[in-house]
Amino acid sequence: MNFLEERIMKDGVVKEGNVLKVDSFLNHQMDVALLDKIGEEFHRRFADLNITKVLTIEASGIAIAYAVARCFDVPMVFAKKAKSINIDGDMYTTEVESFTHKNKNQIIVSKSFLSSADRILIIDDFLANGCALQGLISIAEAAGAVVEGIGIVIEKGFQYGGRSIRNLGYRLESLAIIESMDAATKTVVFRKQEE
Amino acid sequence: MNFLEERIMKDGVVKEGNVLKVDSFLNHQMDVALLDKIGEEFHRRFADLNITKVLTIEASGIAIAYAVARCFDVPMVFAKKAKSINIDGDMYTTEVESFTHKNKNQIIVSKSFLSSADRILIIDDFLANGCALQGLISIAEAAGAVVEGIGIVIEKGFQYGGRSIRNLGYRLESLAIIESMDAATKTVVFRKQEE
Repeated sequence: MNFLEERIMKDGVVKEGNVLKVDSFLNHQMDVALLDKIGEEFHRRFADLNITKVLTIEASGIAIAYAVARCFDVPMVFAKKAKSINIDGDMYTTEVESFTHKNKNQIIVSKSFLSSADRILIIDDFLANGCALQGLISIAEAAGAVVEGIGIVIEKGFQYGGRSIRNLGYRLESLAIIESMDAATKTVVFRKQEE
Repeated sequence: MNFLEERIMKDGVVKEGNVLKVDSFLNHQMDVALLDKIGEEFHRRFADLNITKVLTIEASGIAIAYAVARCFDVPMVFAKKAKSINIDGDMYTTEVESFTHKNKNQIIVSKSFLSSADRILIIDDFLANGCALQGLISIAEAAGAVVEGIGIVIEKGFQYGGRSIRNLGYRLESLAIIESMDAATKTVVFRKQEE
């Protein structure tokens, strides 16, 4: 097991409905040393790529994307949900469905911050059915940017998001892939990955 | 001028309606070196306090709070807007109005992550009328925690939030306080502060 899988075993909580709560260290309370380590690990895995920008989506992706972007020393951009009066009219937009919140959101990125010169690393905390991720990919590609890689902290391997993104040819790496989990027995089984 | 005021002069955009856009470096695209520096500066200013936790609110506060929390080597907690199925029922909650989005949100923090043993540093990107900040203070105090300090990146000094929070006795430090701004002439005037 890697450092993240160990942490999930220690502090993750399995709930009914295939919900894995990691809010004591990853997406409500955040362990800063763990975030630093996640940033370094993604940097190590994608170090061969000439990344110009890290892209994520609010809210829980932001700290992780910053942890990664500071290792690459490139700017981080986060897609926003819904329209704010502080955003110019000139923006990339797409609609995504949220598994967690059971609703749909417009997500937007200002056209000022993504261009055809960009080589993007997309970062997010969770991958389940892949809706948010597909939204980010579609925004990056609308900008003419190249999606060089995708880094996910926790992938739910029993949902179809990861498989469909990989089938499209994207280089997707997840620090932990959950093969199955069981709320009754409080167990999590991880997919075996090459170190 | 300090490093942040200089950056605002260089890359901030003044819009009608007292809107200062800093989305090229602070709250949409994020300059990671600037964030690191903001984290270090707040650590320097509040180094005399025995901070146990950094508290902020999603979304644009998250990266800044992480930058600060990693300098203190303490956990960061961000308050969430609206209820998620991934949050337990046992939470602190309060209602805040958003100046930017012209709406009201419930903000919530799980009771697991704030306690009467905590000495809190609250961090946020903007302070205008202080609604979000008062929400965070009320959540921290509902937990019995002590709000030791409040660090704001950009305060709109011509709105009443900063004055009312200081009048309540809180130690509030803003890296930049805008005294006035003018969209017609594209000018920003900062309040003179002790270095």
